[in-house]
Amino acid sequence: MNTIGHLFRLTTFGESHGMAIGGVIDGCPSQLKLDFGFIDSELHRRKTAQFSESSQRKESDQIEWLSGLLDGVTLGTPIAFMVCNEDGKSEDYEALKDVYRPSHADFTYEQKYGIRDWRGGGRASARTTLPIVVAGAIAKQILKEKNIQIAAEVVSMGDAEQARKKGDTVGGIVECRIVGVPVGLGEPVFGKFSAELAHAMFSIPAVKGFEVGDGFALAQMKGSEANDTFINKDGRITTLTNHSGGIQGGITNGNDIVFRVAFKPIPSIAQPQQTVNREGETFQIAIGGRHDVCALPRAVVLVEAFAAMVTVDMGMLQKAGSV
Amino acid sequence: MNTIGHLFRLTTFGESHGMAIGGVIDGCPSQLKLDFGFIDSELHRRKTAQFSESSQRKESDQIEWLSGLLDGVTLGTPIAFMVCNEDGKSEDYEALKDVYRPSHADFTYEQKYGIRDWRGGGRASARTTLPIVVAGAIAKQILKEKNIQIAAEVVSMGDAEQARKKGDTVGGIVECRIVGVPVGLGEPVFGKFSAELAHAMFSIPAVKGFEVGDGFALAQMKGSEANDTFINKDGRITTLTNHSGGIQGGITNGNDIVFRVAFKPIPSIAQPQQTVNREGETFQIAIGGRHDVCALPRAVVLVEAFAAMVTVDMGMLQKAGSV
Amino acid sequence: MNTIGHLFRLTTFGESHGMAIGGVIDGCPSQLKLDFGFIDSELHRRKTAQFSESSQRKESDQIEWLSGLLDGVTLGTPIAFMVCNEDGKSEDYEALKDVYRPSHADFTYEQKYGIRDWRGGGRASARTTLPIVVAGAIAKQILKEKNIQIAAEVVSMGDAEQARKKGDTVGGIVECRIVGVPVGLGEPVFGKFSAELAHAMFSIPAVKGFEVGDGFALAQMKGSEANDTFINKDGRITTLTNHSGGIQGGITNGNDIVFRVAFKPIPSIAQPQQTVNREGETFQIAIGGRHDVCALPRAVVLVEAFAAMVTVDMGMLQKAGSV
Amino acid sequence: MNTIGHLFRLTTFGESHGMAIGGVIDGCPSQLKLDFGFIDSELHRRKTAQFSESSQRKESDQIEWLSGLLDGVTLGTPIAFMVCNEDGKSEDYEALKDVYRPSHADFTYEQKYGIRDWRGGGRASARTTLPIVVAGAIAKQILKEKNIQIAAEVVSMGDAEQARKKGDTVGGIVECRIVGVPVGLGEPVFGKFSAELAHAMFSIPAVKGFEVGDGFALAQMKGSEANDTFINKDGRITTLTNHSGGIQGGITNGNDIVFRVAFKPIPSIAQPQQTVNREGETFQIAIGGRHDVCALPRAVVLVEAFAAMVTVDMGMLQKAGSV
Repeated sequence: MNTIGHLFRLTTFGESHGMAIGGVIDGCPSQLKLDFGFIDSELHRRKTAQFSESSQRKESDQIEWLSGLLDGVTLGTPIAFMVCNEDGKSEDYEALKDVYRPSHADFTYEQKYGIRDWRGGGRASARTTLPIVVAGAIAKQILKEKNIQIAAEVVSMGDAEQARKKGDTVGGIVECRIVGVPVGLGEPVFGKFSAELAHAMFSIPAVKGFEVGDGFALAQMKGSEANDTFINKDGRITTLTNHSGGIQGGITNGNDIVFRVAFKPIPSIAQPQQTVNREGETFQIAIGGRHDVCALPRAVVLVEAFAAMVTVDMGMLQKAGSV
Repeated sequence: MNTIGHLFRLTTFGESHGMAIGGVIDGCPSQLKLDFGFIDSELHRRKTAQFSESSQRKESDQIEWLSGLLDGVTLGTPIAFMVCNEDGKSEDYEALKDVYRPSHADFTYEQKYGIRDWRGGGRASARTTLPIVVAGAIAKQILKEKNIQIAAEVVSMGDAEQARKKGDTVGGIVECRIVGVPVGLGEPVFGKFSAELAHAMFSIPAVKGFEVGDGFALAQMKGSEANDTFINKDGRITTLTNHSGGIQGGITNGNDIVFRVAFKPIPSIAQPQQTVNREGETFQIAIGGRHDVCALPRAVVLVEAFAAMVTVDMGMLQKAGSV
Repeated sequence: MNTIGHLFRLTTFGESHGMAIGGVIDGCPSQLKLDFGFIDSELHRRKTAQFSESSQRKESDQIEWLSGLLDGVTLGTPIAFMVCNEDGKSEDYEALKDVYRPSHADFTYEQKYGIRDWRGGGRASARTTLPIVVAGAIAKQILKEKNIQIAAEVVSMGDAEQARKKGDTVGGIVECRIVGVPVGLGEPVFGKFSAELAHAMFSIPAVKGFEVGDGFALAQMKGSEANDTFINKDGRITTLTNHSGGIQGGITNGNDIVFRVAFKPIPSIAQPQQTVNREGETFQIAIGGRHDVCALPRAVVLVEAFAAMVTVDMGMLQKAGSV
Repeated sequence: MNTIGHLFRLTTFGESHGMAIGGVIDGCPSQLKLDFGFIDSELHRRKTAQFSESSQRKESDQIEWLSGLLDGVTLGTPIAFMVCNEDGKSEDYEALKDVYRPSHADFTYEQKYGIRDWRGGGRASARTTLPIVVAGAIAKQILKEKNIQIAAEVVSMGDAEQARKKGDTVGGIVECRIVGVPVGLGEPVFGKFSAELAHAMFSIPAVKGFEVGDGFALAQMKGSEANDTFINKDGRITTLTNHSGGIQGGITNGNDIVFRVAFKPIPSIAQPQQTVNREGETFQIAIGGRHDVCALPRAVVLVEAFAAMVTVDMGMLQKAGSV
């Protein structure tokens, strides 16, 4: 269950303080000359947290390409890549070895597997999202050739500087728009474009909500308000409004695909918190180390990456099935 | 893409006015004596729309069990079942054969496949959700033996009677709670319990939003407010609050799983609407026929059904992987 | 595990003496006008056993098409179909209810599931191969439009009439040839064209061996004998010989695909045999009922059907991945 | 299509002369202390070719473990590993850059992908089987705890020393036996234990035939000869003979699982051969470089590895489905 996608598939691996983080992309079309500069710039977007403290983890994020390429051109074989974990100060976490940080995955991982890598969140660390950005960048490159653009932005966020001062953190909402998607992508029953997006977005750590088009607001509307009237615009059938967010019956209708993703605040706060350890004893902890006040700025590129991967994947499925 | 689930799998088939609607459940444990009375009662919940007009479609919903059972006991082989479509008045839809109803899937299906069954929405009809209720009822029976209960309810809905008078429709929100789920279900990266639920819920027609725990509200909270403090309750580790909705790091933490699903209003409204036909000509339509004012009352059992299927599926995955 | 195929997928259901046998084909391209006459003729090939006794089961094999079609044209939605089991004389099997017939699946099914449908072999009956012929016929129709032909024949078989007299049965070998497959089908590592064929052929009851090209004979050859020399034939690169059976490195090379499938004799023999029952008591049985002397004549169309399904599936995968 | 397995899954990556060869094992149970010495000894079995010339490739085969482990114990997260390609003399292959070696995958890869890594066979190189040995070793360790043993051996092979002198190569047959498999593994219709084995074995380069139990010989037998009589042996039901090779109806019956795999001769021969290049021009080539006379000695451990992986995978599926 560390693989996502049907035809354009990404398998990721790695723990925060293990030897490396990486992924294997299977199903990428051959003869694509990778734009490494673009991939690096996407990784840079992920790394840059505008509300960072100086103590934040130094991640060089230098990708090593292990397979699938000949002179930078895809072979059609699996593209494996990794980034070594250089700056993992596991001693920061030693004190938390037996303690379950509130709203982190420490407790659930340990219960599920009977063991967990306690160093920096292990597999549950946000660092493990790096391979998604790489795969997303490649997917974007594929989409670019088809004039499909993806852009996400933070549309709502708590007061980060205020929160920092109080040793607190904030959440927020990211909105994403995919422009240029052809009509007809998405499988209508159990692989709806919206369902695939939902699944992908909920794979991002800290995501707790997802909505397409007007989303939850549609629940308060009347049909006469919510319906998107079909019109003939210069010979092309489209809709006057886009309450549906570009997806009807699970299938893209040619309009912009619009969705929003809700992130809870980062659970690692500097304020003292009460919790328990493995033995059930009550503890008071204050999480130090290198943590962001808000995941949103980093999350924007993740949202785009998954959106790109889903779009490529659904496009390949549609191509496969056409007569 | 008409199959959902990893180990407990449902494949559905059928169009609104085709010969039959049905499904095949693959991976259901053997030696389970099916509670047919319970399955029928669940189907009854789906059928009963409390705001129905008298002209609503008469669906006998008489299930024919085709395979997988011996004297009502599961064999471990695929359980196929169907309901014949008796009362399909396709003439009601003849006038809409070439017209794209606003916010329906007529246009997208036709663009995707180059053909569509125009009778009653075809494959996109809400009638095709019937097999989900059947599979969900069986999943609930499996969960019941493990003391896991699922209950959904409408927590927000527009004014239906008011809407009916105006030939309009309303949407709303369904909240669901799964009680008794053990700690450790859900795969942590791409098969998170929350992601699997999201995918399943977005497979229900008209769903436009999904949130877990406090969901979108978490985006406005601070970490100190959103975190769920771990406590030792009579020797069992649990959390004081449940903002996370029972899922942390994608894995169940033993608390109640709580989530909400937003439904847009039913797009079939009696009010006149403008739209276009296949040739792009503008039309004025008023959708008659047998339609609900609100899908919510029928949707409650669907939400529960998918929740049950996901829980069984994740439970089986967890069992498979344990040492 | 009752589904085969990646993009062109067949899910089958049904037991020998249950209510119905059938299947769901998911991923079939839309706008295909089904040739029902051809499908019936393929079913007829399966039914006709040239060495049959008069007491053989009367199977009307009247297909009911449940979904996925509009006026006989595929909609792109799942094509469900079934054949009702009319002539199931389960009393013939009453005596064998607690007995494990030698080299049948009675014992293994019962151990696996803790329950089995003892009537006519249940899910393990050869009757459950009927849906494969239907899906295979549709796959052949798709291939026909691309000028790909498939033909299998019995190339080796024991002396059936001799065996019948002695209450015995015989096995044999079916050879199949796929002509016109383009170069490049098959995934090179874990979805080799040969591996997909092998998996499919071993899904036919009684199959115990499979070889591609010169197969086992290649194990006795030298490299200089076994290699297929590339030549330029009228501007097209092909091979002088075809020891490889049209597949190199798991991928089709444009030559005929040739493979053979070995079938063990039907285990139901009239001769008295010793066996045990559920309690481990030794029994002497003589299997009466309606049984063939040899499965080969019926199996030819099954081999072709699976070959067609694999070819369509691999073709769709190749199409999906092309730039 | 570079992933094999349902629950115990291996994804492999790498080309012969790329940066690294490796794999990701997903679904391995947690809390398993890996026996690295055993893994190395298995890799050594793969490396040692008893008929090697001194010029054979020096492969240090030093595994780097990238993820999924904490102090050598499995975490339940993906286990990624790789071996860097140190000794890749790609200049050896420069002359073959545009030439299609007979019975190699050069031609088919290039036609499929429009590009190929010509250095040492690229992805089609036997070197890419290394990750299978690693995953197989871990699977064997899991099986060992359940007292399941796997042993393969060469049962037929051409005269290697004779072939070497003539610049030729030989093929052969490997037989494998799995002892201690419980009754009930294997899915009965499309995931038969035999079908899963067949698929896995055909994933080994150069494999052209596969048979279970008496295999092709069964095609010449009568039912009365081929049937395995059930007996009660000290209170346990088993079979007197094992013509079925331990699998009946696709499900293990508790007897030894026995199967044979036919390998064609290695196509790289020193003798001069005729072939064509990309432009269709006829060439005479003599393949130098470092090649084995026979793949069989190296293949034994591969056959065992896949057998182990299939057994673990089927065991996990069975566990998941049990009540």
